[in-house]
Amino acid sequence: MKYHLYYWPGIQGRGEFIRLALEEGGASYTEGGGVAAILKLLAARAVARPPFAVPVLRAGRQLIAQTPNILFYLGGRLRLAPQDERGRLWIQQLTLTILDLNLEIFHTHHPLGDGYAYEEQKAAARRRSRDFLSVRLPKFLGYFERVLDLNRAHAPWMAGARLSYADLSMAQVLAGLDYALPRATRRALRRRPRLRRLHDAVFDRPRIARYVASGRRLPFNNEDLFRCYPELDL
Amino acid sequence: MKYHLYYWPGIQGRGEFIRLALEEGGASYTEGGGVAAILKLLAARAVARPPFAVPVLRAGRQLIAQTPNILFYLGGRLRLAPQDERGRLWIQQLTLTILDLNLEIFHTHHPLGDGYAYEEQKAAARRRSRDFLSVRLPKFLGYFERVLDLNRAHAPWMAGARLSYADLSMAQVLAGLDYALPRATRRALRRRPRLRRLHDAVFDRPRIARYVASGRRLPFNNEDLFRCYPELDL
Repeated sequence: MKYHLYYWPGIQGRGEFIRLALEEGGASYTEGGGVAAILKLLAARAVARPPFAVPVLRAGRQLIAQTPNILFYLGGRLRLAPQDERGRLWIQQLTLTILDLNLEIFHTHHPLGDGYAYEEQKAAARRRSRDFLSVRLPKFLGYFERVLDLNRAHAPWMAGARLSYADLSMAQVLAGLDYALPRATRRALRRRPRLRRLHDAVFDRPRIARYVASGRRLPFNNEDLFRCYPELDL
Repeated sequence: MKYHLYYWPGIQGRGEFIRLALEEGGASYTEGGGVAAILKLLAARAVARPPFAVPVLRAGRQLIAQTPNILFYLGGRLRLAPQDERGRLWIQQLTLTILDLNLEIFHTHHPLGDGYAYEEQKAAARRRSRDFLSVRLPKFLGYFERVLDLNRAHAPWMAGARLSYADLSMAQVLAGLDYALPRATRRALRRRPRLRRLHDAVFDRPRIARYVASGRRLPFNNEDLFRCYPELDL
């Protein structure tokens, strides 16, 4: 199967969760077409099951949208999830929680949504970040460290004996967090050795390392979902 | 199978999406235990695959968390989703988008998260609501109306010939929206006859109507995720 990924050019965004799965799974995929192709896809009248937003994965004639849904689909095909239903639900449950954390990180700089520029919501961003860093982030990271500890017989992975798309997604969020809020992240990870190890293990995987080295992985930047504003990194 | 649902008492919240599926599916389920039972569950050390948050569904010895994940699980068992993989992914894609809308409605009154009371974030809530009502809500509702139009051969349902958990979830969000922002909702639905019809069709289903009439469906209230603050209903 050849895949095509539609996502906004110039940023990693939610598309990066899909790219990491495609890369680690050794899938053959293309991107491109830019903003015009996305707008055309989203407005297309001939699509029976239209997507609301990107990322969208085209698999043959099938269009699949919603990041966790695409990952669920790919997990079964690229050996990035267990075969049994319980195992698949558990990987999906973890991934949905990782994506919830991802969204909360976005909200630290855009609590009023992307209808306003960051400069128009700086005061709100500061307050939201304060709560995020003192309450939400420790809660999320403590939970994920506990999940890793429960699966320590199969370290460094989150669930079962093999790497899954939950591991890829967790490592991506940790990488983004470290770009956006480096001081807070370093402090928060000091007592989370299993999360640090998971992050390193994912980016050491041969296919992921090749992808990063290829230059195709876009650098983090302040147009993206993870943004570095030092005034929020308390 | 007998199910047990863990969710915060006194509110519909995310638990209501699960309740509607259980009710429409004719499932046998219990609730109860209150906050103490939830805190005990979330902190339990003997759970191999611990949930991060409620709702949590106990199915035999299996614990399943994350609203869309529970719905996916129940969809297959309670005949609230198609059997084929493409159909299941489509229902799940729609539901994830419906739950995204649900979260954005929550953010209209809590843009800074629930670490602050509404009274501490009124100005931010007003700005976020303005963008939500002028940009995001029309975009979401226009999309869902289009999905219904594409499936008009099987009206009033969103996908295929039968009711699915996407229909239940859509109707629930419309009901909550009408409680929280009645003026804006009425105006937005004026030109969305298919969404109005879907809402009514779901709440007219015999099992759902019996559930509502039983008094077990909690009333909307301002401790819940949908909240009515007239100053936000522009």
